[in-house]
Amino acid sequence: MKRIVVKFGGTSVGSIEKIINAAKIVKKRHEEGNEVIVVVSAMSGTTNDLINRSKKISENFNKSELDVLMSSGEQISSSLLAGAIIELGIKARSWMGWQIPIITNSNHVLSQIIKIKTEEILNFISKKGIAVIAGFQGVSKENRITTLGRGGSDLSAVAIAKFFKTDSCEIYTDVEGVLTTDPSINNKAKKIDKISYEEMLEMSSLGAKVMQPTAVQTAMINNIPVEVKSTFIQNPGTKIVSENDIDNKNMITGISYSKRNAKVSIVGVVDKPGVAADVFEPLGENNINIDMVIQNTSLDGKTANITFTIKQEDLKETISIIEKNKKKINYNKVTHDDKLAKVSIIGAGMISSPGVTHKMFRSLAEEKINILAISTSEIKISVLIREEFIQKAVKKLHTAFGLN
Amino acid sequence: MKRIVVKFGGTSVGSIEKIINAAKIVKKRHEEGNEVIVVVSAMSGTTNDLINRSKKISENFNKSELDVLMSSGEQISSSLLAGAIIELGIKARSWMGWQIPIITNSNHVLSQIIKIKTEEILNFISKKGIAVIAGFQGVSKENRITTLGRGGSDLSAVAIAKFFKTDSCEIYTDVEGVLTTDPSINNKAKKIDKISYEEMLEMSSLGAKVMQPTAVQTAMINNIPVEVKSTFIQNPGTKIVSENDIDNKNMITGISYSKRNAKVSIVGVVDKPGVAADVFEPLGENNINIDMVIQNTSLDGKTANITFTIKQEDLKETISIIEKNKKKINYNKVTHDDKLAKVSIIGAGMISSPGVTHKMFRSLAEEKINILAISTSEIKISVLIREEFIQKAVKKLHTAFGLN
Repeated sequence: MKRIVVKFGGTSVGSIEKIINAAKIVKKRHEEGNEVIVVVSAMSGTTNDLINRSKKISENFNKSELDVLMSSGEQISSSLLAGAIIELGIKARSWMGWQIPIITNSNHVLSQIIKIKTEEILNFISKKGIAVIAGFQGVSKENRITTLGRGGSDLSAVAIAKFFKTDSCEIYTDVEGVLTTDPSINNKAKKIDKISYEEMLEMSSLGAKVMQPTAVQTAMINNIPVEVKSTFIQNPGTKIVSENDIDNKNMITGISYSKRNAKVSIVGVVDKPGVAADVFEPLGENNINIDMVIQNTSLDGKTANITFTIKQEDLKETISIIEKNKKKINYNKVTHDDKLAKVSIIGAGMISSPGVTHKMFRSLAEEKINILAISTSEIKISVLIREEFIQKAVKKLHTAFGLN
Repeated sequence: MKRIVVKFGGTSVGSIEKIINAAKIVKKRHEEGNEVIVVVSAMSGTTNDLINRSKKISENFNKSELDVLMSSGEQISSSLLAGAIIELGIKARSWMGWQIPIITNSNHVLSQIIKIKTEEILNFISKKGIAVIAGFQGVSKENRITTLGRGGSDLSAVAIAKFFKTDSCEIYTDVEGVLTTDPSINNKAKKIDKISYEEMLEMSSLGAKVMQPTAVQTAMINNIPVEVKSTFIQNPGTKIVSENDIDNKNMITGISYSKRNAKVSIVGVVDKPGVAADVFEPLGENNINIDMVIQNTSLDGKTANITFTIKQEDLKETISIIEKNKKKINYNKVTHDDKLAKVSIIGAGMISSPGVTHKMFRSLAEEKINILAISTSEIKISVLIREEFIQKAVKKLHTAFGLN
């Protein structure tokens, strides 16, 4: 007998009909002899609707209360799904985060899971019951409701797989698996059969929305086999596994992109030890996330230019912080550029294929796409380009690296 | 300093604008120097919407899961209201039933409150905080969410007033108080300034929807002063108090009615001791609520006719149960009538005014309204009439007893 986590995303439980469909999938996995723990997101649209209500009261709505508010979405979907499973003649019940409990820290709206108690649910599933757990939510040591951040139900699912020592974690969603790229900008996108945790982590961090990055990371650290698959079509999905379990490493597995990047250049910084810290410390303190960083020394060797990228919405604050610290940083001027995109090619096989970088740059040059910045890791190359070239770039790279 | 409960019904928090308005009322009561505990219903329409979703899955949706589902409505409204109060610069936080906890028995969808822990909230309000409690919900000893039945937030409010030993309980609603009758059928309905618990209990049991009967009863037993008032107009409402606190007892305080009654007559019952038990025992076992009962002995003194009223929706089952027990009861035949209404006049002063009964019957006769059954208590007289005469009867009695 296997013990499995079965997680349904918002679109998979987006209507009563879909909830009944999800209940049937649960029934099937149960009748195949598995101990099943279900994790469920809020019905699609619910969380946004709740957040919008809070925003009508305040753009800065109290975070503890926002957690109480938002967690009601999964309370609704989990009770409906448990009821639908019972209606199919199978023992089931819902658990809210506080009932299990799923203990988190008190960092409201972005809490981290500390511990999950397992006794009660283990007892229930050992007696042929199906546990339906509300995703996204936990409870703090102060006995208040917490939530795990956007896409947190994925994290709930993987953390539950970890604490309950399940054999696998199935993520049911509205696409047939992880695709080589976003099908909405390239209809030649194809399902990936197997992908390594590392590749998946890059894919999801770089814009593929199929699974939340922290969830992928947790699965990777704990070596939990994950399968992303369709709720609506009975086909194998994408298996996310350890790199060692992939026989034929693709040079390039997928292409992802993210919009709304901005670039800031600080020109003529006096080049002395600690200057990068002087630039980035005040930004970090203001929770501004720095992505790529490039530093060039000028010809005279006395000054440097520091260029970095951030999310577009942080641009105004970033400029203001840098100007406020002009004296301390000691620079000539600051320039910026927005409406930029980051396009990344990802592949664990890249490391043993020296021609990849060259091929990527050549392909983009053929399309007359200017590269504004470059960042690389062992399994990915990201380039910064203007937003209007995204589709052209993705299509070209998809073809160039044989993903069509 | 006074400690008060302030309860908002569904229409009082039916939109974000109304929630902000409710927050302002709370702020005002707080600034007047009161320790304030707020109890809140779900936003109007929410509970019905949730129930309808469950019905699409099953007409017989699992009751424990229905409680999880329904209680999300008050989770939403209480977090929004707490957030709106915080936005006004006052310390506030929400409490769900399980957080306090409000311990109930495990009778899902119709639970009774056993105990409410007070320490944490007493500590919070003593430090100028406003506690916002989700109405309608509690938690069982098995740590599952329970609810108190329709209108249960009134009961939450009064029970909280009792356990927290508050000085009063204010019920904010969409009408200006308790009215002499339903304004939708008689536009001469007027606000009652003061009403006794007993009268209010009869009023709400007999169809006035302004406050749930069990809540009135709990207030009466614990002598909690209640005021029903408008959320939208700043006027005094209706004070519900002990009979001793009412100086000028009205002969008649109000007129209520209920629709969808049915009448069943069992004709020619052999008159022997225990026959009434034989009739009503099997009905009680099937949870059929008997309202009025009339028994006449026939002229020969050997047989009797037993007539009683029930809710119209129970008629079919009632007839079937009686026919199943024909041998045991030993009767001649059973007849029935539906689409009946019960119209009641209520007044604590009735007991010292012998002409009331006569006046009521005469008034109805003048309108040519046939009385099908009568039932009386010390403070009310109810008559059964055909549904189509409700409006005519209420208007006539409202005038006859000087309530216009």
